[in-house]
This record gives sequence, structure tokens and C-alpha cells, in this order.
Amino acid sequence: MKHSDVFERLLDEFGRLPGIGPKSAQRIAYFLLNADEEQARRLAQAILEAKRDVHFCSRCFSYATDDLCEICQDESRDQSMLCVVAEPRDVGALERTGAFNGYYHVLGGLISPMDKIGPEQLHIQELLSRLAQEPVEEVILATSPNLEGETTASYIARFLKPLGLTVSRLASGLPVGGDLDYADEVTLGRALSDRREL
Amino acid sequence: MKHSDVFERLLDEFGRLPGIGPKSAQRIAYFLLNADEEQARRLAQAILEAKRDVHFCSRCFSYATDDLCEICQDESRDQSMLCVVAEPRDVGALERTGAFNGYYHVLGGLISPMDKIGPEQLHIQELLSRLAQEPVEEVILATSPNLEGETTASYIARFLKPLGLTVSRLASGLPVGGDLDYADEVTLGRALSDRREL
Repeated sequence: MKHSDVFERLLDEFGRLPGIGPKSAQRIAYFLLNADEEQARRLAQAILEAKRDVHFCSRCFSYATDDLCEICQDESRDQSMLCVVAEPRDVGALERTGAFNGYYHVLGGLISPMDKIGPEQLHIQELLSRLAQEPVEEVILATSPNLEGETTASYIARFLKPLGLTVSRLASGLPVGGDLDYADEVTLGRALSDRREL
Repeated sequence: MKHSDVFERLLDEFGRLPGIGPKSAQRIAYFLLNADEEQARRLAQAILEAKRDVHFCSRCFSYATDDLCEICQDESRDQSMLCVVAEPRDVGALERTGAFNGYYHVLGGLISPMDKIGPEQLHIQELLSRLAQEPVEEVILATSPNLEGETTASYIARFLKPLGLTVSRLASGLPVGGDLDYADEVTLGRALSDRREL
């Protein structure tokens, strides 16, 4: 095989990753050819191990290496709170806030007729089963405040209301540290209508 | 091992690549966990194969899978022209122009006292050996028009002049398709002093 074939393959594979254009792929490929053997091996290894060891938690459908993820295994958390999110990465984002100590449920996507994703492809049935078994008192529907996120939240809320649970959504408003000038009118309007008394 | 450890390792390793910040690394890591097994395996494989199969050409020090790179193996090229560049990636950039049909010599860097890179760390000795053996008539010193590139070109030119070779540098001037308004004054000054008669 020619050097250019090996190189093209590397470019190709990196070019498939999100946010990596042809120029970045090239920069990375040259960087790796220049890097020591060990660093390249570690990267390849990390990819293979992640794919081998990480799968979905059997309870909340976030990522896990055991049957249950670390959060579901942690019995010290607040069983009365359940936060419903679209993707495993949202669990990471919420955990980093340090502001939530309950459990999670990952839907595995959002309802999106455009992408042919209906409610039956999401882990909504499993959510309802959990709610029948676990002592949950409040469900936070923490899907994004966009079309798909709102649709999915409304859809799920219809099933939860009859169960007598508190159902909530994340607050919308100005980003902290953001500039009022730069906020779009919808966000600003929401910030106004959801204003808090001091 | 916990899921977060495997994941952190993946973030870490991607974060070491050039142009990939923490956010991009995260996006890529989640993408790979979501991607099918086959795609992740292909990426890891491409990295390992590139490191295993690609090394430096024994003549020009560009990348090669055989002892000689594809360009050095191609006997149909013009032996009278030798283009000296800093890095293997510069060979790729010049080849893509389709404007050069001679051979290359890769220095493996540029003289840079700041980074403690002196001439003895570059393949300058090997360049002089090649010039003693090969029927080269013109040497193009195609290093970048910046401090390190100019320093390195001047340093090498001193050795080449006595050999009776034509020694040239790439032209500096306005980028094709660029806007005169946006050119910095040094580039514009150079474009002016190197102006061509029509």
C-alpha cells in the first residue's frame, strides 16, 4: 500500500467525526504521523476500549460499563427526583452543574417527525415502568427548549399528569453572564414573562 | 473501570490533538460512543496502520511506506529541480498545485533558536550529500516567508551558492483572489517591489 493510501484513509476517518473539516483532519493526520508511537496507540486504544466497555445502563439508558451506570448504582441520591433527558451527554451536562441530586432517565432522542423518530423509538415505555416502581415525586422534563424538545416534553407530560406527579421543565431566560443586547427576542420575551420577584 | 474513566480517557486523548478543544473532544467522544462499532474500529485501525506503515523516506525524508517515498520512486520527474521544504505536509501542499514536477527534500523543521532547533537537527547535511550525487540544477528553498523560514533559507543558501546552482525562493505577494484592502503592509510592500511587467 502506498503512503498516500494510508494517509488518505486516516484523513477520511477523521473527516467523518463531527466538527472536523478537511483542513482539521489533515492537521490531525500530520500531527499523528509526527507524534510518538505511544500517543497514537493510546488514542486508538481509548477508542476501542470505549466501544468495547461502554453500553447503555439497563435502568436509565445513560452510558454504563456495568449493568447499571454509576448514578443508578449510587443509593445515596434522592429517589424522589427523576430528570428526563434526551441523550447521555445531557446527564453529563446536568451533573457538572452540581445542582441536581436525583436520578436520570435518558430517552435516547427526541420526537422528530422530520427525522422519522416517533415516541415508540424513545425509552418512554421504560420511563412509565420506572415511575410505577420507584418512589418518584417530581419529574423534571429537561429536554432542550426547541421544537423537538418541547414536543417531546408535552407528549410525556400527558402521561405523567394522571399519575399525580409534579412535572416541571427547566427555566428559560437569559444565559448567566450573557448580554441582554445579544439575546434573541424569543429568549428575551421568555425571560420577561418568567421574571422572578426579588 | 467506571464508565466515566473510559470516557475521560477518550476525552483526554482527543483533547491532545491539534485544534481540538474540550468541547470538540466531548462532541467527538459522544459521537463515537453513539457510532456503530465498525466506524470506531476503522478509525482506530487507520491510526494504528498509519503509525505502523508510514516512516520517513530514506532519500527526501518525506513520508513513505517503502524505503523510498512515491515521489522519489517516480523516475519520470525532473531531476534537475529540487524543492526544499520544512515538513512532509509542505510536499503535499506543493503537489496539489500541480505546478512542480521535480523532487523534494524535507528538512524536518526550521532553524528556531526559540525552540532550540539548530541547523544540525535538520536534514541539511543530507541535502548537501544529495546535491553532490544528483544532477540538480535549481534548488527552490520553499520554506515559509516568516522569520524561521527566511533564516533557514538564508543559512542553506550560503552552502548552495558556491556549488554554482540556481537558488530560488517562492514569490511573496498578494494571495490570488485576495483583496488588496485586506493585505498587511509587509505583504503589500513585497507585492509592490516584486511587481511583474505585463
